[in-house]
Amino acid sequence: MPTIRPATPTDYDAIWGLAREAIAAGDVFAWDDTATRDEVLRWWGGPGATAFVAETDGRVVGSSYLKPNQAGRGSHVANAGFVVGAAGRGRGVGRAMGEHVLTAAAAAGYRAMQFNYVVSTNAPAVALWTSLGFRVVGTLPAAFRHPALGFVDVFVMFREL
Amino acid sequence: MPTIRPATPTDYDAIWGLAREAIAAGDVFAWDDTATRDEVLRWWGGPGATAFVAETDGRVVGSSYLKPNQAGRGSHVANAGFVVGAAGRGRGVGRAMGEHVLTAAAAAGYRAMQFNYVVSTNAPAVALWTSLGFRVVGTLPAAFRHPALGFVDVFVMFREL
Repeated sequence: MPTIRPATPTDYDAIWGLAREAIAAGDVFAWDDTATRDEVLRWWGGPGATAFVAETDGRVVGSSYLKPNQAGRGSHVANAGFVVGAAGRGRGVGRAMGEHVLTAAAAAGYRAMQFNYVVSTNAPAVALWTSLGFRVVGTLPAAFRHPALGFVDVFVMFREL
Repeated sequence: MPTIRPATPTDYDAIWGLAREAIAAGDVFAWDDTATRDEVLRWWGGPGATAFVAETDGRVVGSSYLKPNQAGRGSHVANAGFVVGAAGRGRGVGRAMGEHVLTAAAAAGYRAMQFNYVVSTNAPAVALWTSLGFRVVGTLPAAFRHPALGFVDVFVMFREL
């Protein structure tokens, strides 16, 4: 099981490395190869967000963030994001980070969590979030340009806390 | 019919005035009374966004913006936002701005438009967007804290261009 802890600025290179790997694969994030380190880290750990890292054997193998999905009147709904490197895949890192962030969100007083942009063809992610109690509450038609599959749907997923 | 033109920095006070009026009413935007001028204008007219104003008799009665809803692989879907002041209501300002931004989005090469946060109890907005070809593609349960009605659903609305 990985150790999960709040990220510090010394983790930013590792987080950007994981994000860049996922961006290069092109099948998870909207960011493409024009995305910059600043842009990604501002989203991941910017004002209002809390970033975490998952470590195995002292190595950062994944990262997550937690933030309000909207301002004031929508700020009781959390948003979270996740990235797992190749070294962490198939080892329960994503599930551990998902469970951790749900616990952190409930402790912070959020009433629900929303994922705005789960690519419908990302079957492991859809299966993981479904097993953690999320359901698809919206389908965005052809909203993601997949590098191999062309335009594919995107799911909005949601669960109460 | 209002005149619609790109906003300039000299319009920012007017846009903030309209936004502040809507924020005070509390039934349209997630922003609450903690929202600042900088925060709202950065969203409305920040990098990557184009802001417009609607004028009647030389007075700004509404404003809209157009931007990509996501980065790179999602940037073919536009996002837009609208605010109409009390002086413009019931005079077709919202409809004129909606039609204008749809035309602008198509001309800019977007393939679709998505509204991420239409409060379900905002009947005039839901009716207007439906009449302009949008449909509800997602329902976010209790995602908006309405000042009079408590927690109410929010719609994600979408249309192809």
